[in-house]
Amino acid sequence: MAEFNMQNYLKFWGAKVEEFYESYMTVGDEHVKGLVSSMNYSLFAGGKRLRPGLIYSSYGIFEGFFDKVTPFAGAVEMLHTYSLIHDDLPAMDDDDLRRGKATNHKVYGEATAILAGDGLLTKAFEVMTNTDINPDVEISQMLEATHKLALATGDKGMVGGQFADMEAEEGLFNSKTVDFIHTNKTSRLVSYCCELGAILGFGTEDDKKRMREYGMRIGLAFQIVDDILDITSTTAVLGKDVGSDVDRGKATYPALHGIDESHRKAELLIEEAQEIISTYGKTAEPCRQIAKYIIERKN
Amino acid sequence: MAEFNMQNYLKFWGAKVEEFYESYMTVGDEHVKGLVSSMNYSLFAGGKRLRPGLIYSSYGIFEGFFDKVTPFAGAVEMLHTYSLIHDDLPAMDDDDLRRGKATNHKVYGEATAILAGDGLLTKAFEVMTNTDINPDVEISQMLEATHKLALATGDKGMVGGQFADMEAEEGLFNSKTVDFIHTNKTSRLVSYCCELGAILGFGTEDDKKRMREYGMRIGLAFQIVDDILDITSTTAVLGKDVGSDVDRGKATYPALHGIDESHRKAELLIEEAQEIISTYGKTAEPCRQIAKYIIERKN
Repeated sequence: MAEFNMQNYLKFWGAKVEEFYESYMTVGDEHVKGLVSSMNYSLFAGGKRLRPGLIYSSYGIFEGFFDKVTPFAGAVEMLHTYSLIHDDLPAMDDDDLRRGKATNHKVYGEATAILAGDGLLTKAFEVMTNTDINPDVEISQMLEATHKLALATGDKGMVGGQFADMEAEEGLFNSKTVDFIHTNKTSRLVSYCCELGAILGFGTEDDKKRMREYGMRIGLAFQIVDDILDITSTTAVLGKDVGSDVDRGKATYPALHGIDESHRKAELLIEEAQEIISTYGKTAEPCRQIAKYIIERKN
Repeated sequence: MAEFNMQNYLKFWGAKVEEFYESYMTVGDEHVKGLVSSMNYSLFAGGKRLRPGLIYSSYGIFEGFFDKVTPFAGAVEMLHTYSLIHDDLPAMDDDDLRRGKATNHKVYGEATAILAGDGLLTKAFEVMTNTDINPDVEISQMLEATHKLALATGDKGMVGGQFADMEAEEGLFNSKTVDFIHTNKTSRLVSYCCELGAILGFGTEDDKKRMREYGMRIGLAFQIVDDILDITSTTAVLGKDVGSDVDRGKATYPALHGIDESHRKAELLIEEAQEIISTYGKTAEPCRQIAKYIIERKN
């Protein structure tokens, strides 16, 4: 096999999600034109499309009807996008740049950015429970997928992680806090993406557990690498401000353990993730490649 | 029958919802203690509990197993509460007082208030899709209830209404804009509450439509009365700042049509609402009383 090109692979699935957005993200009434513009601005702002890629890849281990995955991948990316819009707000991380473009509130103002985030969060749940666009998914699967998404992203998941992240800026932090932040802010949703593939593909409870654990490890590795790149990379390569974590005294792995040990930790996590899915055959190859990519990526 | 006391009636159902919150709104990890505090601060800040009251009352037309309604009523009130927290933010309405208490961001800071809102919005969907706490509700009902909640409160519903409301402050507004704002900001969710009763009570499609239309009218009347009270009442009675709509040049019914015509419009809507549910017997009495209360209330 020729060298696997992860960028192209993620772009391929990302295009499916963008097609979905183009048909679904319509303006209902002229009064909300500016709101939908703002939502679409961030949805179409690029990004790695790692989460959609993970959902399709995980699903591919169990089934091959990829079309039915698209609304779910689109919904999860909506949810991820809302979290970025709110995280960038002046009251939160106060970032001007995201994916090489001005952040949502810089373009549309704070009020609209808050509402665009609220709108995307709500729409993620709208899409996941829409039987019209999900005719090939059983309602029990839809309900399980929706409930687990809420668990992964609420106060006991992503939002909780973001809260702990904000709190940690204000004081000292220890290893337990950093673990909590990384696990909840990033890994829970990544883990959910991997489990979602098993849910939609009629995997067993064992399959779901395995994919969840694979996802927790690659999610954590992803966040550690992110924090390392914030120190070692440049704005031009990353498309966002660098060094800002250090400036803010953010609770990160490299801040606590240094770059080398952080990198070793990430490598270990990826090894464990690969081991967990070694039980699957060739259909798991994309998941193996994603794990490799996460540790090797430069942006 | 003795005079119907609406405050006590709403308090009765509100207490059921608060009991649910007490058992469900637990702190998962010490790192999110402050976040859950902030969420609970607003959940327990009082309020009329009109939406829970409407859900129980509408459901009572069709069935009598009120216990099964509680998680749904709790979820909708969570969603309503998130919308208040975000509306009060400095970037939005910038309000200091809500239900006679300091607004969420005044107590917990802006970042936490944004996250508390995000957390409550997410938790509403978590609760509605939780099969463990909803054993007597069919999954098709849960899915329909969840999907319609998202539709009523997203960019084509409540969030869209709030957006148009913010936009209207910046310029001139006409009758069409005011209708759009009121319909979407308030009536859609109120209407959903009434339909939800029919969904949970196994009402027919005709029942759902009827309850939806009853709800649209009482929701609109509720908002018109709210805007009138903002002009004619006092902070002590309302528990929030008065006159702020006028100060901000907000797009309201009384601003456009004057107080008298606005009151007549609200009365007409209530008459229509009563007519719509006249097909039901005595089980619809609470819904009739709520319609009466909405037009007669003083705060």
